[in-house]
Amino acid sequence: MYRPQLKVVDCTIRDGGLMNDSHFPFDMVKNVFRHLAASGVDMVELGYRNSKKMFDPKKYGIWRFTEDDDIKRVIEGIDYNCEIAVMQDAHKAFAADLGPKENSPVDVVRVATYVADVDKAINLANNALEKGYRATINIMAISHTIERELEEALQQIEEETNVFAVYIVDSFGSLYSEDVDYYIEKFKKYIKKSEIGIHCHNQQQLAYANTIEAIIKNANYVDGTLYGLGRGAGNCPLELLMGFLKNPKFNLVPVLEAISSEIMPLEKEIFWGYSVPYMLSGKLNIHPKEALRIHALEDDDPDKYDYVGLYRKLGEI
Amino acid sequence: MYRPQLKVVDCTIRDGGLMNDSHFPFDMVKNVFRHLAASGVDMVELGYRNSKKMFDPKKYGIWRFTEDDDIKRVIEGIDYNCEIAVMQDAHKAFAADLGPKENSPVDVVRVATYVADVDKAINLANNALEKGYRATINIMAISHTIERELEEALQQIEEETNVFAVYIVDSFGSLYSEDVDYYIEKFKKYIKKSEIGIHCHNQQQLAYANTIEAIIKNANYVDGTLYGLGRGAGNCPLELLMGFLKNPKFNLVPVLEAISSEIMPLEKEIFWGYSVPYMLSGKLNIHPKEALRIHALEDDDPDKYDYVGLYRKLGEI
Repeated sequence: MYRPQLKVVDCTIRDGGLMNDSHFPFDMVKNVFRHLAASGVDMVELGYRNSKKMFDPKKYGIWRFTEDDDIKRVIEGIDYNCEIAVMQDAHKAFAADLGPKENSPVDVVRVATYVADVDKAINLANNALEKGYRATINIMAISHTIERELEEALQQIEEETNVFAVYIVDSFGSLYSEDVDYYIEKFKKYIKKSEIGIHCHNQQQLAYANTIEAIIKNANYVDGTLYGLGRGAGNCPLELLMGFLKNPKFNLVPVLEAISSEIMPLEKEIFWGYSVPYMLSGKLNIHPKEALRIHALEDDDPDKYDYVGLYRKLGEI
Repeated sequence: MYRPQLKVVDCTIRDGGLMNDSHFPFDMVKNVFRHLAASGVDMVELGYRNSKKMFDPKKYGIWRFTEDDDIKRVIEGIDYNCEIAVMQDAHKAFAADLGPKENSPVDVVRVATYVADVDKAINLANNALEKGYRATINIMAISHTIERELEEALQQIEEETNVFAVYIVDSFGSLYSEDVDYYIEKFKKYIKKSEIGIHCHNQQQLAYANTIEAIIKNANYVDGTLYGLGRGAGNCPLELLMGFLKNPKFNLVPVLEAISSEIMPLEKEIFWGYSVPYMLSGKLNIHPKEALRIHALEDDDPDKYDYVGLYRKLGEI
């Protein structure tokens, strides 16, 4: 698959930050960026640009706020052609969290939102556009949206803002490929000015397959992370995505280097990837918070491997 | 998806046995069978029925030979409706390894073969049929077959034996869903008397997605294993497959119980599941033996996480 307009976005530090309160060491982020810049990915999302009123800086690492000065230190001395993105949560960030583009190394502001917060999202996206950035709106928890509300939100986005992409975000990893088809078709019915993007989670081991499906259906912005690092079961692995995309500009070698040197050591500290608790939350189309709690238990906790107990607790039996 | 003629086969002990020389403790196998019998799966493959001339019984566990007496002890005292299968490798088993059906608890003999050994496979399948068993032929390493040889083999199977299913086996986990479509169509062109089956490996995290694709394309025999236990990156996880299939006869609870009590403890002894070494072998469409070697290294071995070195060794850079 080689389509010039197809853009690959890495969000390792941003989505991975959900597993460690965005506490990645600075040198690790710089090394990740160096390798990603060499890999040919089109955009690197370096973290959240959320509000310190919503997240205590004593508790959260700097990549929850990803200030311009920190990004400048990351990119210093590194040749890169990719765009640099940060994410703002519609309900956890404010317009004032973003300064003017002239002083910022940020190119793209990705605004993540639930359908219910679409007005806030449009406001933040327009704030970014007015300040000189490019912007996207990423609709989270797509599998929990009510059809009419989703359609209204898409219509509003189409009419009220000039983002360059609108994302389908399968936060709960519950979509099958036929669902991906369904949502892309729905998005295309309303979204005429912007590209469609997809961001998948791997609760049912379908993140990569669903991303391929979205590419086949002409989604042109696709998210991946190094070795799938991300919340819960993780994301679409960037190394797999590059294997599928035949664009000669991509180079798998720096991706493998980054996984070897920066990502594998994290396995000693945090767990992400497929598991039965995540599978159950994906199958049941629910937030993985209970699965995350189970994974945080000590190995000798009787609840840790009591999958039937978890299934019961989640209300299925 | 609910299609009465769709049959789910569990091959946890058989394929998982490739990771520990088939050394599962007897009680573990009995417990796995008890739970699978309660789960509603249609067939349970309890091991290989290969030859002691090809595998040294001092080195390999009893599930490499899976003799009738061992199976009788497994099923003793357990109510079950599923069929019981064993696998014979076309090049590692002999007709004499199979006794008459009258004395055997085995229902189905699955003959695994490379295209080159199809004559041996047909011979073993017909031996099973003549002795009163049902039989399948499972074509391994499908992604390495030469078209003309595959077509000839399929034609031969259609003409020379009466197996009830012919399997596509993606041994190297290198197929994309479009490849699954391609092979199913090719199989259907030649195989008119038998059902089509699919057995996937997870090198590219596509085992489940490709199994779904095969189901959609009317493959009626699908293989899964508990928590994906199987060689290398493992197989299609049975617990995911049951989530997709809406047949009310399936019960996920005993599957979860079996994973909790019998499979998770194995994680301390053997590693299976997605990894970069397996991903590379899937992407490159090669046998996972080099990836298996890498995984067997100690954690402090410099080769263990040298993924670029591995990629170079595999000949891509």
